[in-house]
Amino acid sequence: MSRPQPLSGFPELLPRQRIVEQQVVDHLRRAFELHGFANLQTRAVEPMDQLLRKGETSKEVYVLRRLQADADGGDAGLGLHFDLTVPFARYVLEHAGKLNFPFRRYQIQPCWRGERPQDGRYREFMQADIDIVDLGELPAHYEVEVALVIADALRGLPLPRVTMHVNNRKLSQGFYQGLGIRDTDEALRIIDKLDKIGPDAVAKLLIDEVDATPEQADACLKLASISAADTSFVDEVRALGVSDPLLEEGLTELAAVVDAAAKEAPGFVVADMRIARGLDYYTGTVYETFMEGYERLGSVCSGGRYDKLASDGKHTYPGVGLSIGVSRILVPLLQSGRLDATREVPTCVLVALANEDERPEANTLAQRLRRRGIPTQVSPSAAKFGKQIKFADKRGIPFVLFANEEGTQIKDIRSGDQVTVDVDAWEPPAEDLHPRITADGTDE
Amino acid sequence: MSRPQPLSGFPELLPRQRIVEQQVVDHLRRAFELHGFANLQTRAVEPMDQLLRKGETSKEVYVLRRLQADADGGDAGLGLHFDLTVPFARYVLEHAGKLNFPFRRYQIQPCWRGERPQDGRYREFMQADIDIVDLGELPAHYEVEVALVIADALRGLPLPRVTMHVNNRKLSQGFYQGLGIRDTDEALRIIDKLDKIGPDAVAKLLIDEVDATPEQADACLKLASISAADTSFVDEVRALGVSDPLLEEGLTELAAVVDAAAKEAPGFVVADMRIARGLDYYTGTVYETFMEGYERLGSVCSGGRYDKLASDGKHTYPGVGLSIGVSRILVPLLQSGRLDATREVPTCVLVALANEDERPEANTLAQRLRRRGIPTQVSPSAAKFGKQIKFADKRGIPFVLFANEEGTQIKDIRSGDQVTVDVDAWEPPAEDLHPRITADGTDE
Repeated sequence: MSRPQPLSGFPELLPRQRIVEQQVVDHLRRAFELHGFANLQTRAVEPMDQLLRKGETSKEVYVLRRLQADADGGDAGLGLHFDLTVPFARYVLEHAGKLNFPFRRYQIQPCWRGERPQDGRYREFMQADIDIVDLGELPAHYEVEVALVIADALRGLPLPRVTMHVNNRKLSQGFYQGLGIRDTDEALRIIDKLDKIGPDAVAKLLIDEVDATPEQADACLKLASISAADTSFVDEVRALGVSDPLLEEGLTELAAVVDAAAKEAPGFVVADMRIARGLDYYTGTVYETFMEGYERLGSVCSGGRYDKLASDGKHTYPGVGLSIGVSRILVPLLQSGRLDATREVPTCVLVALANEDERPEANTLAQRLRRRGIPTQVSPSAAKFGKQIKFADKRGIPFVLFANEEGTQIKDIRSGDQVTVDVDAWEPPAEDLHPRITADGTDE
Repeated sequence: MSRPQPLSGFPELLPRQRIVEQQVVDHLRRAFELHGFANLQTRAVEPMDQLLRKGETSKEVYVLRRLQADADGGDAGLGLHFDLTVPFARYVLEHAGKLNFPFRRYQIQPCWRGERPQDGRYREFMQADIDIVDLGELPAHYEVEVALVIADALRGLPLPRVTMHVNNRKLSQGFYQGLGIRDTDEALRIIDKLDKIGPDAVAKLLIDEVDATPEQADACLKLASISAADTSFVDEVRALGVSDPLLEEGLTELAAVVDAAAKEAPGFVVADMRIARGLDYYTGTVYETFMEGYERLGSVCSGGRYDKLASDGKHTYPGVGLSIGVSRILVPLLQSGRLDATREVPTCVLVALANEDERPEANTLAQRLRRRGIPTQVSPSAAKFGKQIKFADKRGIPFVLFANEEGTQIKDIRSGDQVTVDVDAWEPPAEDLHPRITADGTDE
């Protein structure tokens, strides 16, 4: 077999890059659990009718078939999930009788979309989602809470500055309604293209597709241009002179989110009337998040409130959630070398071997260090000590242990310092116990 | 939409079951990292030519297709991986220039096989693999080491007793060769069916398929009946009177594994000449592991040495690895209720709310507990305190915090004890900080 080639859109990490990703995921997990979110994993596949229910992404679903499928088609009705929201809504409906509501869960799994790979967009990518769903009614305070949880989760990660841009569907749709535009869903989808196609093309689409007058299109663009880090946006919207009860509801709800966030996570949330979210299941607050210097990647954490995604006809489970694009954030930072790890293995200590016969004793020594939580491996061979030290050095293993009749010595191969130690008492410096993330060559 | 039905072969866990799975995976990860294994994740898909290279499972591969695939077929050449060994071998070849050998990695990911679901066999299942590969030559001591790492990893989990059964392909194939059987690969595949079809049917197959005489078939069955927890099996095999250089090599290698394991993990490893492993890429030691009382599940941790799986023509990367069937072990234990968690949420403390206006202050209190690592959430509403306590009780949250002008009190809702506390100093008992696994209702 010849050397395999990478598959476009399916990025894979080298061991030291994976250490970074693993530590970022650990950090997110810890933050979510501190806020009481329980973990879930849903299966990778969903019935196609679930996947095709909503939204524009449906056309890029990967469909499955068993290689030896029976004539009846067998599994023809299954596809890989393209996000974690649709599977979660299905899970809630399927297991509703065994869940306690309000129900909060986080989920960190790969998703698949068959779209054309480009910077920040992959065919396989990891998402980290949080959602809160309730039975019947979902209090608005959760729309504040999920933003604060994400602020907390992203804090402490060695990332460029991130800012969450928040809008409310009721605000935009109420505004369009108040203007006299009928198809407010379609108007939202058109406004969602603003970053991609620019204001002139958007105005034309509004005129062509939803029968807006030039004045109405202009008002829509004016609304989309409003943003503020505090509740001053309310007056700016009112100054546009449109009135509608749904618009008022949206203004109140968005002001509550921005106000609470300004107090509890200053500088993280901005009200931004340009945010629309293409998926049509959102009904209230919508969120997008941008990373400074990496705006070209698009939103790195998106979501919103959805009132009707999970409903079995008898009961409805409204929810609100946010999804961090773990791959979208990390793959570019790892590929450019901006993030790295201090070493490529978990190993902190290499036990050197004077001759192969001593392997059992070396294993015992290693096991004593492991019992105290110190990652340790034994040298692959009883080569010359210089070669064994080189083995450690190539991998970034900081310490090599030598044992002989006189006792046990540990060498810090970076400084060359070698000291006699008691194996059952020696501790590495805390910063050397596990690999750490470095950003631009600097430890974070 | 009506209530969705479960998909056969795609088991999903409830939140409290997932907590058990998560803690088991954390335990395995910690053990693997203590032994210096670096984590990898490979993409879920592989080119079909990789997946169809070897082994019997190939026919149950799930093939992918984009719903809107172009006329040219697009992604028609991709399928979901059915194990983690084939993707790892591909990864090693693809990234060889950036890896340091010997290279040890662990990998914990789902795999997919379209086979008929049955007890312990699923269409989607999680595997936890360790492998060590080297460039050109792989020293035999790694065949001992991977068994010891698994012994260490499974130790401390609340599982029924597990025993690893070990054989060596060279031993069996050398024995068949010494007997005069030509197609030793096929003979091994037939012996592998012993548990399924019994000795008479195996003897018949040996006679029909590999032209064995009844005496040769009988000798093969005698060999397969030998097992021992120490090196006494060597004499038992020799007593069968077959001699062959490959058989001698196998005896020596298997004796080394059994001998080292008896010293370092007493009672864990048994030499068992019945073990063959169906996949034909194994070339040395082969392993299967059985769980007491759950033998019907088949092997819960299998693997072996493979010398030719990863080769690009110029270089060969022989390896040895073992794969723990995480789903195969846990799903039956969870479904029967033998394993459970002490609660269904990470939350340790619920902050009660006297009225909705106090939510920001309650958030601040919660945040102070979280900063010290105590998972905390705020009550969903300012309902009567009795109802808020019930909210905690239903989820197993052990503590409820009440704040008023007089100070802050924490109630242990199990005992009813309520004490005044300093929020910045109070610590829950260590066993209440996080959910724990219980086995048969008893904490482990």
